[in-house]
Amino acid sequence: MSKREETGEIRILPLPVVGEIRAGASLSAKLVAAAKSARLRFQDGDILVVKHKVVSKAEGALVALDEVHPSVSSRAWGRRFGVDARVTELALRQSRRVVRRKRGVLITETRHGFVCANSGVDVSNVDGGQHAVLLPENPDRSAGRLRAEIKKQLGVRIAVIVSDSFGRPWREGLTEVAIGVAGMRPLIDYRGRRDLHGYSLHATVDAVADELACAAGLVCGKLAGTPACIIRGFSYRMRNGSGRELIRPAKHDLFR
Amino acid sequence: MSKREETGEIRILPLPVVGEIRAGASLSAKLVAAAKSARLRFQDGDILVVKHKVVSKAEGALVALDEVHPSVSSRAWGRRFGVDARVTELALRQSRRVVRRKRGVLITETRHGFVCANSGVDVSNVDGGQHAVLLPENPDRSAGRLRAEIKKQLGVRIAVIVSDSFGRPWREGLTEVAIGVAGMRPLIDYRGRRDLHGYSLHATVDAVADELACAAGLVCGKLAGTPACIIRGFSYRMRNGSGRELIRPAKHDLFR
Repeated sequence: MSKREETGEIRILPLPVVGEIRAGASLSAKLVAAAKSARLRFQDGDILVVKHKVVSKAEGALVALDEVHPSVSSRAWGRRFGVDARVTELALRQSRRVVRRKRGVLITETRHGFVCANSGVDVSNVDGGQHAVLLPENPDRSAGRLRAEIKKQLGVRIAVIVSDSFGRPWREGLTEVAIGVAGMRPLIDYRGRRDLHGYSLHATVDAVADELACAAGLVCGKLAGTPACIIRGFSYRMRNGSGRELIRPAKHDLFR
Repeated sequence: MSKREETGEIRILPLPVVGEIRAGASLSAKLVAAAKSARLRFQDGDILVVKHKVVSKAEGALVALDEVHPSVSSRAWGRRFGVDARVTELALRQSRRVVRRKRGVLITETRHGFVCANSGVDVSNVDGGQHAVLLPENPDRSAGRLRAEIKKQLGVRIAVIVSDSFGRPWREGLTEVAIGVAGMRPLIDYRGRRDLHGYSLHATVDAVADELACAAGLVCGKLAGTPACIIRGFSYRMRNGSGRELIRPAKHDLFR
């Protein structure tokens, strides 16, 4: 980690994207165009944060809800709690394990290992019909691809975070988390380093990729047509990293 | 909530504070001086985010570890897991309830209702001796006081967030959370609003105060001597709010 102690101002620069993202679209070309329209230039060291929804759409990770036939159990659940049984069905299919299923809330562990509501399955209008948007198949690969394409198109070396909004126990409201990461480590480990008084900071590992995703969430609003932003001024070492590093292994987790 | 959709650039402006914060110090005066040194002026609508540790120090929420006499059970726990039994003892005294106590990790519900490790008790060198820094007695009141004092000193109306770093289940690393809030609502409720396609966004309440705390965490580093920052450009309605709104009531929580 380079000298985070010397961090100056950080800027969060929104990238509004015009029009719908369709399956097969080049998301990187759209984002480069969005930057140009906003009179921004990507710079070395920038961190691009992209909401997973546009990544999934560009990758075609969509399911037409009409074509989902929910099981008897999903239908019963849907009726009981007034939720769409097709979404429940898809959420179960996308899951590795059900963590909690109570009072209409379905919390699952996704195939990737993320613990979130409904396996991250989201509903959206696409091409006039109702579709479910799934999580990207491999969010790290999605992030890595965006990073490589920006490098190719513009010659700049950036880091990329693909984010989603997750709930969490004990606290109200959703916050953004990093589900895919490329070009940086998502965690900064302060253990063994010393504070200004020489006191060892023994227990602090910061989930900086999640903090960056949250910062991005301040401009990538739910209604905004702003699915991405550039974070500039955050100092990090460019290296390989993965969103999977943020997933606590089951054996270290007190809550599963 | 005012038009978050139209949010432009957001800036995170660090406020490095010189020297130690002592009990009884005017934190607002220190922060105003820090802004001046950094050639920043507080502006109406700014959000001041302050790490709780300096708030606690200024308020004298400190305990000399020498004066803490751990119980037999805390001593056994400390020996078994190589942790300071005095910190364990204080954490238990500051708690309302133990949530998990396993493998050396003590997760409690604090008197305020926050669920976190060791009741938020932190160790720091103060005046050459080892002290435990407790959470502020009433973080909302601390935030409100800073807000009122900045208003009085500079005539500007800002919002204030007092933050701490919490762990969370399922995910590695700490992220910042808002424990005290003044001058804004910590949650934005999108339920019933519609997305660009008219699809109802039925389940999204965003914990913006936590996202703002995380954004601040990018500059308020653990080693930085930067206990506070200004976030500028985030659009919100100025009104009363409380960090307690972010605490999920036990009866709605699937995890307690």
